Formats: sequence, C-alpha cells, structure tokens
Amino acid sequence: MIDYRRLRVALLGAGSVGSQVAALLLKHGDELADRAGAALELIGIAVRDLDAPRETDLPKELFTTDAESLIVGADIVIELMGGIEPAKTYLLQAINSGADVVTANKAVLATHGPEIFDAADQVGAQVYYEAAAAGAIPIIRPLRDSLAGDRVQRIMGIVNGTTNYILDRMDTEGAEFADVLAQAQALGYAEADPTADVEGYDAAQKAAILASLAFHTTVPLEAVHREGITTIDKTAIEAARHAGYVIKLLAVCERLENETQASASGEAISVRVYPALIHRDHPLASVHGANNAVFVEAEAAGNLMFYGAGAGGVQTASAVLGDVVSAARRHIAGGVGVGESTRANLPIVEIGRVTTRYHITLEVDDQPGVLATVAGILSEGRVSIATVEQTVIDHPESGVPVARLVIGTHRAREQDLSDTVDRLAASGVVERVVSVLRVEGD
Amino acid sequence: MIDYRRLRVALLGAGSVGSQVAALLLKHGDELADRAGAALELIGIAVRDLDAPRETDLPKELFTTDAESLIVGADIVIELMGGIEPAKTYLLQAINSGADVVTANKAVLATHGPEIFDAADQVGAQVYYEAAAAGAIPIIRPLRDSLAGDRVQRIMGIVNGTTNYILDRMDTEGAEFADVLAQAQALGYAEADPTADVEGYDAAQKAAILASLAFHTTVPLEAVHREGITTIDKTAIEAARHAGYVIKLLAVCERLENETQASASGEAISVRVYPALIHRDHPLASVHGANNAVFVEAEAAGNLMFYGAGAGGVQTASAVLGDVVSAARRHIAGGVGVGESTRANLPIVEIGRVTTRYHITLEVDDQPGVLATVAGILSEGRVSIATVEQTVIDHPESGVPVARLVIGTHRAREQDLSDTVDRLAASGVVERVVSVLRVEGD
Repeated sequence: MIDYRRLRVALLGAGSVGSQVAALLLKHGDELADRAGAALELIGIAVRDLDAPRETDLPKELFTTDAESLIVGADIVIELMGGIEPAKTYLLQAINSGADVVTANKAVLATHGPEIFDAADQVGAQVYYEAAAAGAIPIIRPLRDSLAGDRVQRIMGIVNGTTNYILDRMDTEGAEFADVLAQAQALGYAEADPTADVEGYDAAQKAAILASLAFHTTVPLEAVHREGITTIDKTAIEAARHAGYVIKLLAVCERLENETQASASGEAISVRVYPALIHRDHPLASVHGANNAVFVEAEAAGNLMFYGAGAGGVQTASAVLGDVVSAARRHIAGGVGVGESTRANLPIVEIGRVTTRYHITLEVDDQPGVLATVAGILSEGRVSIATVEQTVIDHPESGVPVARLVIGTHRAREQDLSDTVDRLAASGVVERVVSVLRVEGD
Repeated sequence: MIDYRRLRVALLGAGSVGSQVAALLLKHGDELADRAGAALELIGIAVRDLDAPRETDLPKELFTTDAESLIVGADIVIELMGGIEPAKTYLLQAINSGADVVTANKAVLATHGPEIFDAADQVGAQVYYEAAAAGAIPIIRPLRDSLAGDRVQRIMGIVNGTTNYILDRMDTEGAEFADVLAQAQALGYAEADPTADVEGYDAAQKAAILASLAFHTTVPLEAVHREGITTIDKTAIEAARHAGYVIKLLAVCERLENETQASASGEAISVRVYPALIHRDHPLASVHGANNAVFVEAEAAGNLMFYGAGAGGVQTASAVLGDVVSAARRHIAGGVGVGESTRANLPIVEIGRVTTRYHITLEVDDQPGVLATVAGILSEGRVSIATVEQTVIDHPESGVPVARLVIGTHRAREQDLSDTVDRLAASGVVERVVSVLRVEGD
C-alpha cells in the first residue's frame, strides 16, 4: 500500500444519490486512492434527521446534523441535499473555508450559479457539477474542456427521464398521458407531485446550465422559455408518427447569427424547453424509456451525441465520484481552480425571435374555400407552407364530419407564427386549433 | 480587450488536421484567449517540405523545417505528424523542455505511451490526446475524469470510420467488400493502401489507448488481439441480417472476473478487435457511415454511449484545440500535470480465455445423421448450442444440394470454440466452415 496524503471529504445529504456516494467511497476506497493519488477519507455525512430510513447500510457514527462543523476543515465538500437553501449557504461556506465543492444540485446552480462560481474564483477553488446536467452522462467536461476550442452551434437535449419515459410509452403503447403518468408514479419514475418534470422546470434548469457552459454566457433561469408536456395527447402522438416524427421534450440551446439588433457581433442565443417533433431517423428519436441524451452540433466537431442514464441514485453517484476524484487530483497537483468562462456573454433573445419549422393541426369546416382562407392567413402572416394534409373525420362529440388539416411550415419566426395562429383561431373557418408543435433537428 | 499572458504554441505537422488546427487558432484567437485565460500565439509550424501543397491558406512565414528550434521555448507543443519517429523524439524533447504536449498520434501512444507519460510525470508536464482515440468524440476526459470514480466493465467501440463505412454500405446495399472498398477509396474514405484500416491495425491502437485509460493498466499493442474485415462477404452480411444482427468491427475492452489464475484479485482484462455480430436493437447498430461510437458499460453509471465523427481534418482539429485550451488553462492555473493512472495494472489475458457467444456457419453433407454428428462434436468440445437453423441450397459451383447450418452458441471459451471448429472441419461431414463470428453486446 502506498502512503497517500489524506484528503478530508464531507458529504451533505444522504438521499438516494448521497447514500450511494458514501457506500461507493467506502467500498472502493483503495481503488479511488490509486486513481486520485490521495486517500479520500469520508469524515461525515450531514443529514436533517439522524433517524430517517436510509437505503444502504452506512456506519452510524458518520452521521451528524451539524453540517457547518463538518464543512470547516474539509478539503472536499459534496453537496447532495438539493433545493436552494441551505445548500447555497453551505456551498459558499465550503468555498470560503478553502474546500473544492462537488454538487449535483441543478436548482442552486441554475439560480445562483454566478454567485457560487464567483466565490470559487475569488479563492481559487473549483466547483464540480458533472451530475447536475444529465445525471450519469458525462457532458460537463466535454462541453467545458473537450469543446473549448470549438464553437457550439446548437444543443438538443433529452434531459428529463420522467418525461421521456412518459412520451416513449405513449408512443409505443398508444396510451394516454394520464394513464402513463400514473404508471410512472407507481414504478417510481415520477414523483407524487410531477410538476417539476412534466411542466419542464427540471429540464429548464439543466438547459440553463448547459447553455451557460456551451456559450460562455450567464444564462439566468428566467431567460429559459419553458413549456411542459401536459398538453400532449394520444392524437398528437399519433399524428406525429403518421408524419414520420416522434415527440420529445427537448432542451434546445441555440446560437443565432445575424441578430444584429441584439449584439455587436450579430450573435445571440436562445434557450428553450418544449415538446418538439423529431424525425424518426434522428439519433435522439431512438432514446427510449427514462434514458437521456444530449445532441451537440459544433462548428468543427460536427454532430456529437452523449447517451446514458439521466437519473438514478447509483448512476448519478458515478458522476459525483468522478468529480471527487478530479477535485482530489487538483488538490494534489496544486494550482488554482479553473473558473467558468462567461466572457462571451451573448444576449439571450426572447422566444418570439426564434425561428423553427412547425406542424399546425387544425379542425376546419368541411366547406369549399376554407383551405384557401387558411392559406391566405398564413401567407399574410409570413408563414410559408411546406406540406398540407387534409382528412375528413367525424367529430368525436357531435358526429358531424369535420376536416382535419395538418400544415407543415417552412422556417418561420415564432412571433409571426403565434400571431398567425391567433388570426386562424379568430377567422371563423377554424373550429379548433388542435396543436402547434415545433420541429427540431431537421 | 483583456491583456492576457501570452503562451507560445508550436505546431508540428500541417496535414489535414494540422492545417485546420492552425487555421482555427488564427481565426478564433480572441475567443480562444477568453476561454483559455491566455493568448495562444502560434509561433510556427514545422513541416518536412516547405513547398508541399496545403489545404488552407496559412501565412508562409509560420512554416519551418526546423522542428527542434520551434520546440525549444514553446509552452505548448501540438504534434500532428503521425507515425512513430520523429514524433516520439519531438514529444520527449517538448516534455523535457517544459512544454505541455497535445497529440493526435495513436501510433506513438499505443507503442510508446508509457515512456511518454513517464517523462511527463518526471517534470510535472501533461500529455493531452483527446483526438487520438475516437477523432472528434470526447472520450478521453469522460474515461479519465468523469468515470474515475466508477468501475468500467466493458467498452465496445466502433473506432474506425473506414471499416464502418464499408460494412454499412455492404449492409444497406448488399454490395461486396471489394466493390465498396474501391468506392470508399474513390471518395477518400479509404487510403490507397487500406491495410491499417481493414486489417484492424488502426482500431487496435485505439483499443490499447482506451483500455489503458479505462482499466488503469498499461496495455501494450502486442496484447491486443486483432482481426480485420477482409473475410466478411455479402453472404455473411446477409446471414447476420437474417438473424437480426449487423456486423461491426468492434474494439472490445473487457474486465474479466474470477480469473483467479491471472491475478490475486481474480480480475483480468481482455482487449480485442474483430468483426462481430451486434443485435439490431443495440445503440451501436445504428451507427452508420463513417461515424464512430464508443459504448461504455460501467458498474455504477450503467450504459453510456459517445457518438460522432471519428475522423476528418476539421472534426479532429476540434478535439486538438480543446486540448490546447486545457493545456493553456493548466499553465495559467499552475500546479503539476495529472499523470496517467496505471496502478491497477491488471493482467491481460490471451484471446483463448475470453468467452463470448458465436454464430458458426457450416456447409455440411445433406445426409441423415449429420446434424447429430455436428451436435456431438460441439457437446464434446464444451460448446453448448442455443439455436440451429438448417437450410438446403444448391452449391454455388457444383450445383449439388448442400445443407447450410447456422449454429448459435451459448457463451463458450474462445479456445474451446476454436478447437471445436477444427474438429468440425476434420470430421468428414463438414464440407466447409463458412464463417465463425462472435456476438457482442447481448
């Protein structure tokens, strides 16, 4: 055995990720020491309730409710509590007492990232957060380091396992949203209160983190446009399949050129989360179940995809421990931490300025001249039609025949599209706007 | 503009990757400076022939044939010459004169990696080689850093674009190997002398690099079992499709448990390159054209896949520049380089000890009792049969009916399998052993 320098590791939180991290630290201690070049001594685990049930058998004497004492004197602090407070206070305390920090806390990074990164910069500490953006999938180092010499043009991420599970089951089984959600809750894939997942809040936090890294820009959570999947029904899924697409909740981070009003360079970015149509040939379309994947388009590297488990205690623990080893190596090697680069600080444009293609599904009167009226409204609204498919169906309630019109558009500006849809709805010939979905990845 | 510290960057080689690296360094200099925290000054490009044609317009005054003078005094040396010498000598000179080095040279790393890494360790320098294993795909940092706290069980990589292009075209077009190879050569996807690609030498070098990293073990190139794709014909591709598989040239790096004879821990590794059957549902099966992908199975993280362009000048340049930015950040941050971890140094077992499943295709006499004889030989050889399919075809030359037997086996030891195939060939009832292919990823 080599007599390694000892590094003191404090763990905050013992939930599903935290207890796995502690278990793996203890189980693979010798192996981790060889890789880190330092012995990683777990000095304690701070929890709120000493008597709460734990998933794994961990030595009782490691647990404490006194997080602040644990933080003082630790070389590396692992924060796996989640939520904004007290996590943020503890992270700042750890940084200011000279520790490197490892966190999987997307909420605190998406809302207080700049403050935490600044504090680390001041003292030369480093913040590691591989587990915060896509669970076990290594995406932070690829974006921050491997692609540091390239220009990322677009990221499209399936970064929420719960919604991917739901949409995938709806697609493969023809089931309704509510039924699959109930199933997902029973299986533990969805929380009792599924709002954070199904309304896209979780994905929006991850989008903010990914966009900040990819575009070297501070992206506040409020600047992320967010829509959830609760409006996606069986009909929409079937229509998507019929047209050769699948619906995925995507976090899209995009560099926009020629936004001359937005910045001197003419560049700006857009960060948005919404359910979108992806062609079935696209690599993201084959991401099934609760898996995640991040598709990156870079100027030089071309298209890259990173695929794996987006959540899960032991999977996320892998990413956390990778960060712990990196932090330990840095402690041993010496030198200051590498700060986050936000020097580009590109303006973030509102959703209205974004252009994509759309599929608009309408129910219209089955009368002569209706298509001409609809086409006229689109044309006036600067929305150019690429494809049209009209079918006549019996109205599900009244039984009266009604024409269903699916219009695929060329690229159009979101604001123009949304104004046009309003005008269609008010035109008198449209019975119902069934759905408006963006097409991504084409 | 911020007045950054200047770092002197020397480039060795101006082929398709080198000229792109130089062009991007010059074009995106300000942006790279912001990200690196240092101005990257390209002080020169060493080439063999000043008058050779170049793909991009680079300032003439940067070129020199005097590599050694360029290396002395450089902070970062980028080696993109390829081949063993003089690349190895230059890398060692650069390290010993205090520079960090960036290389895309798989040949020199697979053959002299330990010597180069040791030299860097001695002086606290660092060797970066993201571009050496899978072109533009970030795989080195994920393996070295992100998964440093995990245990990699298996890597299956499509790491050679030329052979993937050939096999993919054979699969999608039903074409023969020689025709697709000629096509690939005409399109520039294959070299005039395709040996390094089609015989698996290129993939074997990358396998050695990936296995060294993943298993913290020095893997000499000679320890990599290697077979090429020249024996794969149209019939084999069709038989694979019929059985629900696709044939891919895979670099397999595998941790073997319970190899008690091999090491005290009972662990060992196997590193091998060969064409194998992959089920069409497996994520690797959908890697088309000249793309690469590395599928990683880790104890905690589960299954991960990294996908992208495996070659190409500008794509590979992206990975090289990412390394240059990392090297620059390290220079600014201070501290010594992080050496390669080879402390596990697991024994590498020979191919005979490996177990996989097989598909054995035989032409046998169309006579009663033949299947019983074949089954008996397999059973005696400890090769257990999982599936059998027999069809009668007319012999392509003689026109005589002959029975074709495709036998899928359960997991068997390679040595047992190969002995058994020899016995089948000598049994008198087998006309011809058409093919023996391993099944991976099931």
